[in-house]
Formats: sequence, structure tokens, C-alpha cells
Amino acid sequence: MADTSKDIEELIGIMARLPGLGPRSARRAVLTLIKKRGALMRPLAETMARVAESARECVNCGNIGTGDLCEICMDVRRATGEICVVEDVADLWAMERGQAFKGRYHVLGGTLSALDDVGPEDLRIPKLRARMADEGITEVILALNATVDGQTTAHYIADELAPTGVTLSSLAQGVPIGGELDYLDDGTISAALRARKSL
Amino acid sequence: MADTSKDIEELIGIMARLPGLGPRSARRAVLTLIKKRGALMRPLAETMARVAESARECVNCGNIGTGDLCEICMDVRRATGEICVVEDVADLWAMERGQAFKGRYHVLGGTLSALDDVGPEDLRIPKLRARMADEGITEVILALNATVDGQTTAHYIADELAPTGVTLSSLAQGVPIGGELDYLDDGTISAALRARKSL
Repeated sequence: MADTSKDIEELIGIMARLPGLGPRSARRAVLTLIKKRGALMRPLAETMARVAESARECVNCGNIGTGDLCEICMDVRRATGEICVVEDVADLWAMERGQAFKGRYHVLGGTLSALDDVGPEDLRIPKLRARMADEGITEVILALNATVDGQTTAHYIADELAPTGVTLSSLAQGVPIGGELDYLDDGTISAALRARKSL
Repeated sequence: MADTSKDIEELIGIMARLPGLGPRSARRAVLTLIKKRGALMRPLAETMARVAESARECVNCGNIGTGDLCEICMDVRRATGEICVVEDVADLWAMERGQAFKGRYHVLGGTLSALDDVGPEDLRIPKLRARMADEGITEVILALNATVDGQTTAHYIADELAPTGVTLSSLAQGVPIGGELDYLDDGTISAALRARKSL
């Protein structure tokens, strides 16, 4: 009898370790799951087991897929000679949602950080350099976060790739679509002013 | 190949239906799960499948357990002649965390609501009345939420149980432990004043 309570407690404990959930919200989520165990909990458990079994990192770009190569690296239409360098798979997903980029990606899995002892090898930067020749890359777009660590990493990659002669670019900085000047920070406003476009 | 992406999308979709999670936080949670699939995702999927398989409502009190009767209803030490009536299993868990109540529970599963077409039968109130004689109950503690619906339900149950002659009580209302008067609403302060205790 005590086993279910133990399982439920364990379930709450694991759920509470997910980002965005704490012990209290995990309890609420588990209770909802138990109440809707046919419609919600069983499908969730099955899908989760399936993904846990099949998901793995693409050896080429670091994206998540089922095989050794992800869908994007398998797709010859994505071999446009462009590589977009992102920090994390979440950033890759965000770029894909934008549907503006037609090339391939390279997921670093973090940023350079002396404090956390993260070096170029941890970030798959040697692999990125190797891809330049292997895939005939002509342009590398650095879509790293506009944070200190992100920009440090961008500079390092730019230095590393300079000898290969590929075109390097980074995402434009400026006023976000729908943004109001009054709510923007000074740095963004001055960056937008410096990069102003003639109409 | 496309299957994993579909599974991941499905997983995000199901996770987003949990209370406290939206599409964005579900995506973040799923990404964390995939990154820690050995340590986090597989145990979570297994525990979830186990709970989905074994969890069911106690036919006596409405609590969640594995068998037809929950642990509390099976435990003879909890047969103190007291029943605590709560709205939801979450409230039962909250009471159990308090470790102050030694009797049994009765989970209504909601509150009376003419608008939502919830009547006494939906709330297991006939079952509660039957338990009075079956379990030799002497006191019923109404631990319902201090909301309009909760109090309406409490009044209804009090009227229903009055002929059985059991003692009826409700949780005390007043200043919460650690509460500051300045932050309390007027209703709570006046309730606490009316129910003041001599020292």
C-alpha cells in the first residue's frame, strides 16, 4: 500500500527538479496528472519514455535528434554554405521558429567561461573549424546571446575562424519589433542609433 | 528521423497542459529533461508510468491510493471517530503535512455550485452521511476553503448531518502564524478580533 505514496512522493521530487517548477507547483502538477491519468499521465509517461530512449545529440552540430545526424544535417537543402552558431538547442529552436534561416546550425552547448572552467574543446569549437572545409562553408552567423560571456565567445570564434577566410556576421542589434523606446535600456537605444538605416 | 521531433513536440504539448507550465516553460523543462535523460527523464517516465498504473481513488474517502481503500482508511489507528471534510486531495495532503489531525478524511472533490451544475451526489455527500453510522463517527471537522463556494458547501453539509447528532466544527479563522497585521485583509482581522482568546 505504501508503495504508491512513495512513488507519488518520488514523482513530486523529480518534477520539482524541472526548471520553473518548485515543490509546491510540482505537487499541483502531479495531482492534476493523477486526476487525469488516462488522458494526460499515461500518454505523458509513454512519450517521455520514447523520447528518453531515442533522443541523442547530433555528432555534427549538437542538435537533438534520433540518429547520429539530426534532421537538419541530413537535409541536403540545408547545405547552403551557411552555419548559424548558437549557444543552446533552445536558441536553435527559437531560430527555427523564426523560419528565416535556411542553412545549418552549430550548437556550442554553452559559452567560454574561465570561472566555470569551460574551454574551446567543451564548446565543440574544433568541430566547428573542421566543418568549414568539410561542408564548404562560406558564411558563419554568430547568433550568440548579447551577454558578456556570449560576446566573449563570439570574439574567440571570430578569431579562430579568421584564417579560414569565411564571411563572419552577427545578428543585428536594435529596437525589437513592437518595442517601445520608453522601455528600452540605454545600450540598446544607442546601438540602434549607431546602426541606423537610411529610408 | 522526423519521429523524435514529433515526439518532442508532443511531449512539450502535453507538459504545457500541466498547471503552472505554459508552452515556453514546457519547452525549457523538456530541454532539461533531454539533456539529463539518464538521470532525470528515464526515472521520471518510469515513476510516472508506475503511478499511472497503480493510482486510484479510495472508494471510502476519495483519497488517492493503490487499492480500493487508501492507507488512511486501512489504518485502524486512524479510526478515531473524527472525519475531516476537505475539498480536494491537495487539501488532504496539506492537512497531513500539518501532522495535527489523527482521524480520517472525506474528500469532496469540489464544492457545490449551481452554475457549474455540481450537486451533492457529485461531491460524495451521501457517502459521507453513510459513513457516520458505518464508522461510528462522533465529530466532523469541516476544513473547507474560506471562499463563498466553500462556505456554502460547509453550510449544506452541516444541515445534512445535523439529524445524525454528530459534533460539527470548522477550522478557526484568524491571523496566520508569522502573519503581519499590516498585510492582512479587513475580514481576517475582524474575524480574529471576534474570536479573540483570553490569555
